[in-house]
Amino acid sequence: MYIKICLFLLPFICVAVRYKPNWNSLNSRPLPAWYDEGKLGIFIHWGVFAVPSVGFNSESEWFWNYWKNLKVPSYIEFMENHYRPDFMYADFAKDFTTEFYDANQWAEILNSSGAAYIVFTSKHAEGYTNWPSSTAFNWNSMAVGPKRDIVGELGEAIRTKTNLHFGLYHCLYEWLNPLYNQDKANNWTTSQFSRTKTTPALYEIVKRYKPHIVWSDGDAEAPASYWNSTTFIAWLYNDSPVKDEVVTNDRWGTDCKCKNGGVWTCGDRYQPGKLQPHKWVNAMTIDRQSWGYRRNADSSQYLSIEELLATFAETVSFGGNMLMNIGPTKEGTIVPIFEERLRQMGQWLNVNGEGIRGTKPWSKQNDTLTSGIWYTKKVDAVYAIVLTWPTDILSLAAPIPSSSTTVSLLGYTEKFQWTRRPSSGIDIQIPPIPFNKMPCKWTWIFKLSNLENI
Amino acid sequence: MYIKICLFLLPFICVAVRYKPNWNSLNSRPLPAWYDEGKLGIFIHWGVFAVPSVGFNSESEWFWNYWKNLKVPSYIEFMENHYRPDFMYADFAKDFTTEFYDANQWAEILNSSGAAYIVFTSKHAEGYTNWPSSTAFNWNSMAVGPKRDIVGELGEAIRTKTNLHFGLYHCLYEWLNPLYNQDKANNWTTSQFSRTKTTPALYEIVKRYKPHIVWSDGDAEAPASYWNSTTFIAWLYNDSPVKDEVVTNDRWGTDCKCKNGGVWTCGDRYQPGKLQPHKWVNAMTIDRQSWGYRRNADSSQYLSIEELLATFAETVSFGGNMLMNIGPTKEGTIVPIFEERLRQMGQWLNVNGEGIRGTKPWSKQNDTLTSGIWYTKKVDAVYAIVLTWPTDILSLAAPIPSSSTTVSLLGYTEKFQWTRRPSSGIDIQIPPIPFNKMPCKWTWIFKLSNLENI
Amino acid sequence: MYIKICLFLLPFICVAVRYKPNWNSLNSRPLPAWYDEGKLGIFIHWGVFAVPSVGFNSESEWFWNYWKNLKVPSYIEFMENHYRPDFMYADFAKDFTTEFYDANQWAEILNSSGAAYIVFTSKHAEGYTNWPSSTAFNWNSMAVGPKRDIVGELGEAIRTKTNLHFGLYHCLYEWLNPLYNQDKANNWTTSQFSRTKTTPALYEIVKRYKPHIVWSDGDAEAPASYWNSTTFIAWLYNDSPVKDEVVTNDRWGTDCKCKNGGVWTCGDRYQPGKLQPHKWVNAMTIDRQSWGYRRNADSSQYLSIEELLATFAETVSFGGNMLMNIGPTKEGTIVPIFEERLRQMGQWLNVNGEGIRGTKPWSKQNDTLTSGIWYTKKVDAVYAIVLTWPTDILSLAAPIPSSSTTVSLLGYTEKFQWTRRPSSGIDIQIPPIPFNKMPCKWTWIFKLSNLENI
Amino acid sequence: MYIKICLFLLPFICVAVRYKPNWNSLNSRPLPAWYDEGKLGIFIHWGVFAVPSVGFNSESEWFWNYWKNLKVPSYIEFMENHYRPDFMYADFAKDFTTEFYDANQWAEILNSSGAAYIVFTSKHAEGYTNWPSSTAFNWNSMAVGPKRDIVGELGEAIRTKTNLHFGLYHCLYEWLNPLYNQDKANNWTTSQFSRTKTTPALYEIVKRYKPHIVWSDGDAEAPASYWNSTTFIAWLYNDSPVKDEVVTNDRWGTDCKCKNGGVWTCGDRYQPGKLQPHKWVNAMTIDRQSWGYRRNADSSQYLSIEELLATFAETVSFGGNMLMNIGPTKEGTIVPIFEERLRQMGQWLNVNGEGIRGTKPWSKQNDTLTSGIWYTKKVDAVYAIVLTWPTDILSLAAPIPSSSTTVSLLGYTEKFQWTRRPSSGIDIQIPPIPFNKMPCKWTWIFKLSNLENI
Repeated sequence: MYIKICLFLLPFICVAVRYKPNWNSLNSRPLPAWYDEGKLGIFIHWGVFAVPSVGFNSESEWFWNYWKNLKVPSYIEFMENHYRPDFMYADFAKDFTTEFYDANQWAEILNSSGAAYIVFTSKHAEGYTNWPSSTAFNWNSMAVGPKRDIVGELGEAIRTKTNLHFGLYHCLYEWLNPLYNQDKANNWTTSQFSRTKTTPALYEIVKRYKPHIVWSDGDAEAPASYWNSTTFIAWLYNDSPVKDEVVTNDRWGTDCKCKNGGVWTCGDRYQPGKLQPHKWVNAMTIDRQSWGYRRNADSSQYLSIEELLATFAETVSFGGNMLMNIGPTKEGTIVPIFEERLRQMGQWLNVNGEGIRGTKPWSKQNDTLTSGIWYTKKVDAVYAIVLTWPTDILSLAAPIPSSSTTVSLLGYTEKFQWTRRPSSGIDIQIPPIPFNKMPCKWTWIFKLSNLENI
Repeated sequence: MYIKICLFLLPFICVAVRYKPNWNSLNSRPLPAWYDEGKLGIFIHWGVFAVPSVGFNSESEWFWNYWKNLKVPSYIEFMENHYRPDFMYADFAKDFTTEFYDANQWAEILNSSGAAYIVFTSKHAEGYTNWPSSTAFNWNSMAVGPKRDIVGELGEAIRTKTNLHFGLYHCLYEWLNPLYNQDKANNWTTSQFSRTKTTPALYEIVKRYKPHIVWSDGDAEAPASYWNSTTFIAWLYNDSPVKDEVVTNDRWGTDCKCKNGGVWTCGDRYQPGKLQPHKWVNAMTIDRQSWGYRRNADSSQYLSIEELLATFAETVSFGGNMLMNIGPTKEGTIVPIFEERLRQMGQWLNVNGEGIRGTKPWSKQNDTLTSGIWYTKKVDAVYAIVLTWPTDILSLAAPIPSSSTTVSLLGYTEKFQWTRRPSSGIDIQIPPIPFNKMPCKWTWIFKLSNLENI
Repeated sequence: MYIKICLFLLPFICVAVRYKPNWNSLNSRPLPAWYDEGKLGIFIHWGVFAVPSVGFNSESEWFWNYWKNLKVPSYIEFMENHYRPDFMYADFAKDFTTEFYDANQWAEILNSSGAAYIVFTSKHAEGYTNWPSSTAFNWNSMAVGPKRDIVGELGEAIRTKTNLHFGLYHCLYEWLNPLYNQDKANNWTTSQFSRTKTTPALYEIVKRYKPHIVWSDGDAEAPASYWNSTTFIAWLYNDSPVKDEVVTNDRWGTDCKCKNGGVWTCGDRYQPGKLQPHKWVNAMTIDRQSWGYRRNADSSQYLSIEELLATFAETVSFGGNMLMNIGPTKEGTIVPIFEERLRQMGQWLNVNGEGIRGTKPWSKQNDTLTSGIWYTKKVDAVYAIVLTWPTDILSLAAPIPSSSTTVSLLGYTEKFQWTRRPSSGIDIQIPPIPFNKMPCKWTWIFKLSNLENI
Repeated sequence: MYIKICLFLLPFICVAVRYKPNWNSLNSRPLPAWYDEGKLGIFIHWGVFAVPSVGFNSESEWFWNYWKNLKVPSYIEFMENHYRPDFMYADFAKDFTTEFYDANQWAEILNSSGAAYIVFTSKHAEGYTNWPSSTAFNWNSMAVGPKRDIVGELGEAIRTKTNLHFGLYHCLYEWLNPLYNQDKANNWTTSQFSRTKTTPALYEIVKRYKPHIVWSDGDAEAPASYWNSTTFIAWLYNDSPVKDEVVTNDRWGTDCKCKNGGVWTCGDRYQPGKLQPHKWVNAMTIDRQSWGYRRNADSSQYLSIEELLATFAETVSFGGNMLMNIGPTKEGTIVPIFEERLRQMGQWLNVNGEGIRGTKPWSKQNDTLTSGIWYTKKVDAVYAIVLTWPTDILSLAAPIPSSSTTVSLLGYTEKFQWTRRPSSGIDIQIPPIPFNKMPCKWTWIFKLSNLENI
């Protein structure tokens, strides 16, 4: 089968493309448009780690690794203080009960965020699969704990109840899997683990759940050749049931990050500080420190909506998407503080989506005159995302007004007065707007149409 | 021992008072001043019910009663779906683990709310005592579950780390205690239960923890005579270690509510709709339906800060205190959504406390011209609590300005222009205040000094 | 109501008797005949202690006391090695599951032992009641753990499926009950514990389950006056539903053992070493060290049938009954090693019951010529219980044969030759009996009829 | 490497042998002598099935299969009655606690049986490995449940504390392993399961634990070719660390039983009814129905020592070994009823071992004149194992006495009188032996030396 690549202006001219299992070929594939246009995704980290569900100044989903591999004292002490001496990580699985997990309710909440897609953990580095995988005998969600196809239920709900794209995260490696550690000890000259676990699992989830994102996590230790990554991605792009829509990332081996694959993640909470030539994503967490839910996180650990919007604005301005993470509880709930942040984000996008969705980075990303400004653009306008409400005058160096330039505030009906600044830029008059006429309470977007330098 | 009652203006004239164990005498005791001045208390419901921790359109702390006495289908089904067939309520106790319970952290969070006191469940109707009571063998927090003196730890933290007054809630009756049900079957002509459990427990908590509030919950079925309430309260007022500071309420028997005892609670979430002649309290919950924590409550179940402030304003205006409830988890955490509400309340009081603390009800409570206005007063000013930010002019019928009247907004430096309304009342000019100069984002208080009718 | 005491030879002459609540009166009551005639009872120790179910060179039912009161290192270490740090004794109750407890099956097994009665723990010193007692809120078998009326089920099965008498053990005190320890600290001048727990519980079990034995265990610390023992026993003898058949023991206070009450127990595993003037009982255990089941007991800890019969023979010879104890598992099973011993005892009694049941002690209990001989008698015969099979001649000093004396072996058809010993006694010829003609494999009874000195 | 086969009389003449991976070659290997000489082995079934530990007229180790594959109602009901609805088999693993497992104590008990070897389950059909296998991630004894190398501890204890040979049972297939069921669905044309689990596990246990028996269990469904059995066995015989001593069996595929491999098992509790031309074994259970421990088995379910000896005698007489099974508890104990049987067997062998160990089948196995007789022989004597003690005369048809024939009883000092029977055979006079001179209480062995027809 061939992929058809069509010219934008002459759509009847299409070229049949078939990708080869090497990075040059794979990297040449155009990114499906829906991804860049959506800007916001919701990341969800769930697994057996939701049972201990604690992190001590660190992420909860790494519990097993901190406890048993890295032997971090706070984790060891937690277990000593609250569990029987010979308690092992796999003993937690029985208590992954998920009694309140309602995929339809999750779908509604996720959808309320205004995001375009979700990325859900099919398997984290603990090796537990959230679906009844043939590769994880008695270490999967149908066999121990929930007795449910967690991935399947969510996929179905997302597809039937929302317009969100459904993506899957998959951790390639497993900290404490003896087969993995054997291959590692052999310096990746053997591949018993990748051949019998990771590779078949990747094909399994794509065939079974048809994810629009395959978010690999495997840049830590082994090269892409160990993981057979190029072969898998070539299949994904050429022959898989999602070949047209699917988006991948760059964590396919030690030699890939910020270099090979689909969207570049580069690092967790990546913030490049300048415009990127390649589509990238800022995978970040509402809980400042953790991807999995932490029962011991107090409210100061949760980013405020203001902080989330500041990060979002900067990310979009630099050409990235933001993948904002929540961690459900072992009971299967999205705790209210997460739900509140998701809904706040959705409320904000309801007012301000125009300046975010479908935008492109502008030639300038921030402003030399005023800090806390992030730019995006569309064909006919530049959008200035303003983190702090300006006093009297908003002075911007980057936009060069033309005589027909108009300035407005998303969600607000009246136009704003402005003057061209002597040297360059624009001064926008900010009248005192009554509190009850403000379009939102955090982060505003000014739209500048008909600029000279759009 | 005698209580000294002294005249305010002539403090050297004191009268030794000793209360008698009858309502006339007990009701005559003046309310300790700290209580009315503080206005806001935080109620905390914790117990074994935090283990099942679910409510199905109802409160979670009634779990046992709904399940076994009232046989509500949703509770029965929950147990059938998630527990072994012979699981009983007492089997939950083992999982009341409280591993993250840190009384000092709680004290900090509770204090941040700006409240004047807390009321903590020493025992709810499940009969489980949150302290090692001699009356609850193997059904107390030291014997099964936490292995901790929960009440003691919190009392110590509150006293040493905050200026909050420490109060205790105590449920007199117990739904499924056979001794209680025996006395009930005997139409309260026997009192084996009250004599061996409730009465000694009340003396025990007062002597041991010296609470400034004894919040009885016992108006449901038996008369005060069954509970020996007057004898206990007389001891509390005359001879107990907290005789001077202690405040009680009115749930001392079926014949007491809104009538006898200390502060009147009348009912849960009581809102009288008019000024009350007797000090009362609105005991209400941040979770709309439940006092105990509900794992299955989504964010729509939590009152917003705007809703909380609306309730608070109305309550204070009618002369009540508000006792705002949170329910901790079985792990011992105050979940972030509760913490956020507590801190928001404190932020608001930091700005607006002047119009709340130490105020008295004014002659008018709300306004005939503009809805969403609640009044309080102090010696020299009337405070108008405004739930919705007014557009252009705030027209009030109740305040009659004098020539020296000034109008200000708490947290805002400038004075407001006003004009006397033709017939009566005042029109306050509301200029468009820039967003970043607003003193707070929800609920504002206008201070009207030198009114004619203060 | 009056008890009728009738003369044996003139049964129409009866005297109405009513016992007074003092020891002189109570001690005067004749022992109901069924008890002495039966000789063998089965003791059963069951409770929450069946959950930890270990003893380290000591009894398992004392687990809580060894662990928390006496702080025995082996118990502390066991908990440290296998449980979470804050695990408390009451946390065990949930796992007292009793899923295999089938009272009818127990009744069949108990009956197979040939015993005349059983004594079942209604409550041990842990305070947990094996019936839904109104005195043990959430610390009884209906409220936590089994959700069953354990006592009721067994009583019903014993009564309807066997001819066994049903008796109940009740421990008066409770090691870790704060009320008990309060009374103890007050040197028994207060009696809050006995008044609210022990006394009502005793009346409750007698009225509800009509036991033919009330086996009190309360000689350890408090005097009988603290326990109100004489009042209770007077009611038991005069007015209770079991006044005619009931048998009690002597553990009604520190001042009773081997002195006051019904049957004397004197001590555990009591073996007086000589004939006793008062009916006594040897309460002993098949597990050498424990009354409750010990999961950690190997087979050497179980008395062999030979050892049991040696003890039984000695006990009966000295005028005692033997109360032989088993401990069921938390699952509700009588493990096969116990069942095997019970059935072996029954097989032996099937052959040898004539020399045991309904016998009286003889003038001699053992023999000066041959060791391992224990005597019993009936009207017309003396029985020599022989622990070791004799070689060629069994020489006995005590029996003085007459010319019509006959010697036989229970379960064996042929008579034995004998000669009068020169001075005194008898020499019985023991022919070599083929293995397959021996009436049993352990412990034999020779019957000597028509002795001169019967 | 080559195996040296040396001639018995000319030991310096040795032939280097190397087995080929086909049955003809493998079947030609001589059986190591120790195995046939020892006659008795102890089989031990332990695994996660020891947690539910019930069988309803069937074996407990098949619990998972009966419950989930075969859907036997009694198993389904047991789970419904005692567990939460979504409880799965893997949820049991956490409670496989083994807190009392003491391999040294086991070694002493096992050794006391007089057996020559043990066979211990390394893995049963549930797939759980009793050692930290690299093939069973989070489904092995180090990862979930015990946190112990169960196989390793027992192997070490057996080797250092006893002279027993240490053997391992390994179940090739796994009922509910999806990989196995995939291969099965593919009619064994794929071998993902055997390649990634069974085969590496077999090599792993041989290299790591050096078992002298590899007791495969894999005759149920797949052919030996699927299991690569001949390749493995060839390695085992040629190159493994146990190539000289190791013994295998015949359950290497559907095409092997009673035909290929080492010792023939043919079926469970196999009793051929006549002398076998090939070494075989009767694998049987002390619990009549189950290999794993059954908590719900009463004493009637346990074979008596008489029954065990009858089976043993018949088995040895027909040329078999007996592999007698016990099932330990999840706590790690060998319950006393099992221990008692093991020790009784050892007591019997202490007296009668001469007629068992190192014997060969005689030309006759049982006797036409008297039933309950089983024969064995050595170079110079025939042994008649007698299940029922004979009366007066033991008439045997098979032995033909010579003039120098002597008859004795093992464990008894005196010789027996005998006469030649008219036609053929021998009549042995059985004098009445006093009970206390009998060498044992169950099953006796007469030794007939210098027979004509030895």
